[in-house]
Amino acid sequence: MNIDAALAELTIVLGQRLSLSKSDLDLHGRSETHFPLTPPDGVAYPETTKEVSQIVRICSAHRVPVIGWGTGSSLEGQAQAFSGGIIVDFSRMNKVLRIGQADMDCTVGPGVTREALNRELRATGLFFPVDPGANASIGGMTSTRASGTTAVRYGTMRDNVLGLEVVLADGTVIHTGTRARKSSAGYDLTALFVGAEGTLGLITEITLRLQGQPEAVTAAVCAFDDIDSAVRCVIDTIQLGIPMARIEFVDAATAAAFNSYAGSQLPECPHLMVEFHSSDTGVREQAESFGEIVADHGGKSFKWASKLEDRNALWTMRHNAHYACMASRPGCRSMVTDICVPISRLADAVNETRADLEAENVTGPILGHVGDGNFHAVLLFDENDADEVARVKRVAHRMVERALEMGGTVTGEHGIGVGKLDYMPAEHGAAWALMGRLKAAFDPKNIMNPGKLVPPRND
Amino acid sequence: MNIDAALAELTIVLGQRLSLSKSDLDLHGRSETHFPLTPPDGVAYPETTKEVSQIVRICSAHRVPVIGWGTGSSLEGQAQAFSGGIIVDFSRMNKVLRIGQADMDCTVGPGVTREALNRELRATGLFFPVDPGANASIGGMTSTRASGTTAVRYGTMRDNVLGLEVVLADGTVIHTGTRARKSSAGYDLTALFVGAEGTLGLITEITLRLQGQPEAVTAAVCAFDDIDSAVRCVIDTIQLGIPMARIEFVDAATAAAFNSYAGSQLPECPHLMVEFHSSDTGVREQAESFGEIVADHGGKSFKWASKLEDRNALWTMRHNAHYACMASRPGCRSMVTDICVPISRLADAVNETRADLEAENVTGPILGHVGDGNFHAVLLFDENDADEVARVKRVAHRMVERALEMGGTVTGEHGIGVGKLDYMPAEHGAAWALMGRLKAAFDPKNIMNPGKLVPPRND
Ligand SMILES: Cc1cc2nc3c(=O)[nH]c(=O)nc-3n(C[C@H](O)[C@H](O)[C@H](O)COP(=O)(O)OP(=O)(O)OC[C@H]3O[C@@H](n4cnc5c(N)ncnc54)[C@H](O)[C@@H]3O)c2cc1C
Ligand SMILES: Cc1cc2nc3c(=O)[nH]c(=O)nc-3n(C[C@H](O)[C@H](O)[C@H](O)COP(=O)(O)OP(=O)(O)OC[C@H]3O[C@@H](n4cnc5c(N)ncnc54)[C@H](O)[C@@H]3O)c2cc1C
Repeated sequence: MNIDAALAELTIVLGQRLSLSKSDLDLHGRSETHFPLTPPDGVAYPETTKEVSQIVRICSAHRVPVIGWGTGSSLEGQAQAFSGGIIVDFSRMNKVLRIGQADMDCTVGPGVTREALNRELRATGLFFPVDPGANASIGGMTSTRASGTTAVRYGTMRDNVLGLEVVLADGTVIHTGTRARKSSAGYDLTALFVGAEGTLGLITEITLRLQGQPEAVTAAVCAFDDIDSAVRCVIDTIQLGIPMARIEFVDAATAAAFNSYAGSQLPECPHLMVEFHSSDTGVREQAESFGEIVADHGGKSFKWASKLEDRNALWTMRHNAHYACMASRPGCRSMVTDICVPISRLADAVNETRADLEAENVTGPILGHVGDGNFHAVLLFDENDADEVARVKRVAHRMVERALEMGGTVTGEHGIGVGKLDYMPAEHGAAWALMGRLKAAFDPKNIMNPGKLVPPRND
Repeated sequence: MNIDAALAELTIVLGQRLSLSKSDLDLHGRSETHFPLTPPDGVAYPETTKEVSQIVRICSAHRVPVIGWGTGSSLEGQAQAFSGGIIVDFSRMNKVLRIGQADMDCTVGPGVTREALNRELRATGLFFPVDPGANASIGGMTSTRASGTTAVRYGTMRDNVLGLEVVLADGTVIHTGTRARKSSAGYDLTALFVGAEGTLGLITEITLRLQGQPEAVTAAVCAFDDIDSAVRCVIDTIQLGIPMARIEFVDAATAAAFNSYAGSQLPECPHLMVEFHSSDTGVREQAESFGEIVADHGGKSFKWASKLEDRNALWTMRHNAHYACMASRPGCRSMVTDICVPISRLADAVNETRADLEAENVTGPILGHVGDGNFHAVLLFDENDADEVARVKRVAHRMVERALEMGGTVTGEHGIGVGKLDYMPAEHGAAWALMGRLKAAFDPKNIMNPGKLVPPRND
């Protein structure tokens, strides 16, 4: 790669919007988790699709890596420039470009954050449901196939992206999908770019499906004696077809972390946090049926939150779980695991993980989007304690192995990046090589976020 | 291609299950629509994935085209061997291999038909919702990204396929997806094979998402004075978030065809046919709200069908619409159009199509899955009347152009095959060439259903 020539040409295109300042490079070299600092060679702040295309053309000519950046909240090192190159920060492409009230869709720039989008939508009666907790960008969420608390009802980014504008590895601009609700017109390129972690192209516009704001919403938190009862309550709720909008699990350690971080006063035992969206009678009916299932499983201290401010407090507490867990052990670092298993195996998966944490003497509060069979252990460790680091890695490794044995996946929503790369052969077998061939067909020079997701290349 | 050598080797593998009889070749050379008879060189009836892999290896060695065949009901010539080769008929791979009661999923062979699957599921309390009317195979439905009457509620094949086993163009067997509800582990290969029309590989197993049989179901048919009122009623229903399980439109000509074909006594005007799935109170609430919207739009002769036999009669009538339309003009051939537009443009799209049919003096009953913005005109013609054929083609062409102008797609559910190939550049622009590169990466010898979906190759 000829980085100096590339930087010179990029400066001509972007002027001040190509940043080489150390602080900016460092800011775009960090991650929220355990990866080391990896400053890129430059940070570009494009404002238009055309500029993105120019950036990619220049980087292609000089074989310089190009890595998209939304808000940098991804957890597997996806947005880090491990082999140098240019970070393309989309924060200036942050406009909501179109809201289709009648069609319940919208088109946005990749830098729009989920919270900003929902602020703009508030007055329309519509909302965008995918909710990873972090105030991530729509471009980043699309690229990691993000989901979160509401996927059980509204699906993940896979289900909510209708179409894309993408700059390919040679600078060509393409459009995928249409504004129709469905299509059988050829390969599903939209689905291919969703979850591709910027390895196939840079996304410059996203058309999203929106939902009508529900007539009535109610949320609740309730406590259980043990993990098993809580998880079995979830399974029954799903099987009875009660359409929860959210159903989240937190274990006793997470409840304790909430209490000290957020000042809540939860009993220190496993909890479910749920929300229902429907008509007034629908919400009532659903809440009642759920209440009966909870009672069957010995659930108690049921607290309803029908007022908006109470619900906001509840979900803010949940969204800050990562930070609450971190705060429970000052100075520690975290490794956030993310497995997803068939619902029928969820209780086993959580219980065996809990037992393993105890056996290895690792602190790892467990919480998750259990309606999807997806949960995380936030493994806390002292990075200078080699033995603890080794124990943490063993626990994380066995979680992944367990997920695969149970017919599940090594990542429900956080993605591969570099953190989960070693597990791709175990999950995909021969299909991983096919992903490599696909990547090579789209990006023959291997400049789009190289080293992530697909088999490493030797050039 | 060296077809004789391939046939000799295939006979060793398959014995009697390689058929060369003229009647069988003819049977696999026909289509339900206007394409000419194109008998293949042989029809293979594999019983295992291993045999499928052997077939593909042999065909690859001799550069012989391989075309999958489910029930041959696709409408754009997808399953026809226009350049000869081997049809792989999956009718013997027709077992339901696993039903996951707790996880609400199942794994099936590609030759299982939709009706056979639902028969096997009946006692489990689960059902598979995707319903294209025709009793198509799950492998074919996956490959055309089929949908149908229930997509408005349960989605299309895109939303209901969790994972696949696929034989690639070199005979390698891969698995995509897991049994977890979601995953961020790499490229979404599952979505890529869904809708690929057998051009990227042959599907030998499919894992499907299932739904719980609803507690209560009710259906209704009601009449409107004009197309506009019916379509606006659909739009209002969607915007109010009433979760219909089905909402179908038929125009006056289709209603008339039903009356003569199925002995119904519908007024000869536009109709909506709807169905609700919910709890007892849910269904009541939904039906009431819908009734109010219908009244607002001057809807009348509302007939409810709560009994199973009445609902079956209703949907059988709908499913036979194609044949009812054909019967309305004995000896004719049909061209079934299939556009899908944003809901906000649906009334315009239907009205302009109706006007165009009248201007061109073409018989074309209109009906469709209007909840998705998707509708068909069944264009009837005498194949020996060159002028009529030309008029039919013009109407079909303008429907497609209109769909694209309105931000829609040239095919909502029937797919591309050869029938819609010419429209791929208009819908996809530069993305179509990318589809061609993708195809070449997966199938370098171009043996998997060549000539369909992607840009033609010159080798
Ligand atoms: C506290 C916390 C809680 C979290 N909870 C969840 C959760 O519940 N669910 C969940 O799914 N995730 C969760 N995450 C992870 C993270 O929020 C998601 O991965 C999110 O989708 C990342 O978005 P981002 O904008 O930060 O993307 P970034 O981290 O900036 O980038 C992510 C990837 O996308 C690429 N990329 C970014 N923008 C573009 C673009 N325009 N075109 C092409 N490629 C691009 C990057 O190169 C990188 O590979 C959590 C993270 C934190 C810190
Ligand atoms: C009366 C009538 C009504 C219809 N209504 C609808 C409707 O409402 N919605 C809708 O979506 N469609 C509809 N169709 C079209 C048709 O039913 C669908 O396209 C259906 O999905 C085709 O399934 P099949 O099993 O007949 O596939 P086939 O026609 O046999 O094959 C379809 C394509 O899939 C490929 N293929 C088949 N099996 C495999 C496999 N195992 N692996 C790889 N490739 C394979 C074939 O090569 C071909 O390209 C209708 C058709 C008719 C005749």
